[in-house]
Amino acid sequence: MILYYAPGACSLADHIALIETRLPYKLISINRDKRTEDGRDYLTVNPKGYVPALELDDGTVLTENLAILAYIAHRSEALLPEDGLTRWRALEAISFMATEIHGGLRPFFKNLPTPEKERARNLLIKHFAVLAQQLGDKAFLLGDRMTIPDPYLFWALKWAPVHGIEVPERLQAYFARMKSLPSVEQALVEEGLA
Amino acid sequence: MILYYAPGACSLADHIALIETRLPYKLISINRDKRTEDGRDYLTVNPKGYVPALELDDGTVLTENLAILAYIAHRSEALLPEDGLTRWRALEAISFMATEIHGGLRPFFKNLPTPEKERARNLLIKHFAVLAQQLGDKAFLLGDRMTIPDPYLFWALKWAPVHGIEVPERLQAYFARMKSLPSVEQALVEEGLA
Repeated sequence: MILYYAPGACSLADHIALIETRLPYKLISINRDKRTEDGRDYLTVNPKGYVPALELDDGTVLTENLAILAYIAHRSEALLPEDGLTRWRALEAISFMATEIHGGLRPFFKNLPTPEKERARNLLIKHFAVLAQQLGDKAFLLGDRMTIPDPYLFWALKWAPVHGIEVPERLQAYFARMKSLPSVEQALVEEGLA
Repeated sequence: MILYYAPGACSLADHIALIETRLPYKLISINRDKRTEDGRDYLTVNPKGYVPALELDDGTVLTENLAILAYIAHRSEALLPEDGLTRWRALEAISFMATEIHGGLRPFFKNLPTPEKERARNLLIKHFAVLAQQLGDKAFLLGDRMTIPDPYLFWALKWAPVHGIEVPERLQAYFARMKSLPSVEQALVEEGLA
């Protein structure tokens, strides 16, 4: 499989998941002009123009972070139980990540006007409080094992403080723990972010 | 199961899915003051304060549209194949619905300043073009059967024209077809929207 990514973009979550599940993968980076590192027009891979995209071994290209993470989990039989409450809580959390948390970070990534950032910041502080409460004293968001929302949350927590968004202490400690995992360390090194 | 909904909100997608899959359900509506129709504080049901929420028979409350739709599909063994490309394309499409389409409609629902609406409108027109191309000449987004992104797309297409967002003809015809399905008709009647 080939993961099309941009260093530090939300594709970092898929990258961590691929390493964590030991699925074989190759990385191809996309630059700001939407060219692949091997010189192709990225729009021919994903017409929507954004990362991540995952090219399967038969050439099928899957897009959208949530779908790619669910696919990686299914292929590896890890990171998302096939049934039971943990499955539904993991899908609930990753949906919250994709809509409210990632959506809330967008005004910062796109450098939108200050009032939009302020509104987003206030909402994100509320949303991170919800996640901190859900995390409680657990190692990962849903228990003692990583599930698909964890690498996505790690990615969000990497960027929130950069944009002056206050993160609860519990999530700061979680971020530090995640960062020291071998899979996360390797992904950061491979993206040139270590 | 109990679906907590607000008439015309994105919970309409779950409502349609419940009828389509013939799972037993009860409806409880939420008003603008976040009170349930039976007078309870909705924040005690879903602390995030928004709909939908699905209360399972054991009292567990599941939130987030995408997670609830995936749960309904799993329970009913309909609307989402357990494996195969249609599964991943359906998750890809519903993620696109939740993030780009629903996220793009938010400035209109919240009546945000005009420049924000204009920016969202331009993006939505591009996103609807992607969906129209994906739909092609098929009855539903992924083939001749409804999958979980369809009722979510129906909901978005119900609101887009109200806010002056141009929808491709192909999606207009799809909307009209969806609207005439018995499950969709029943959901609209039950929400007082027929």
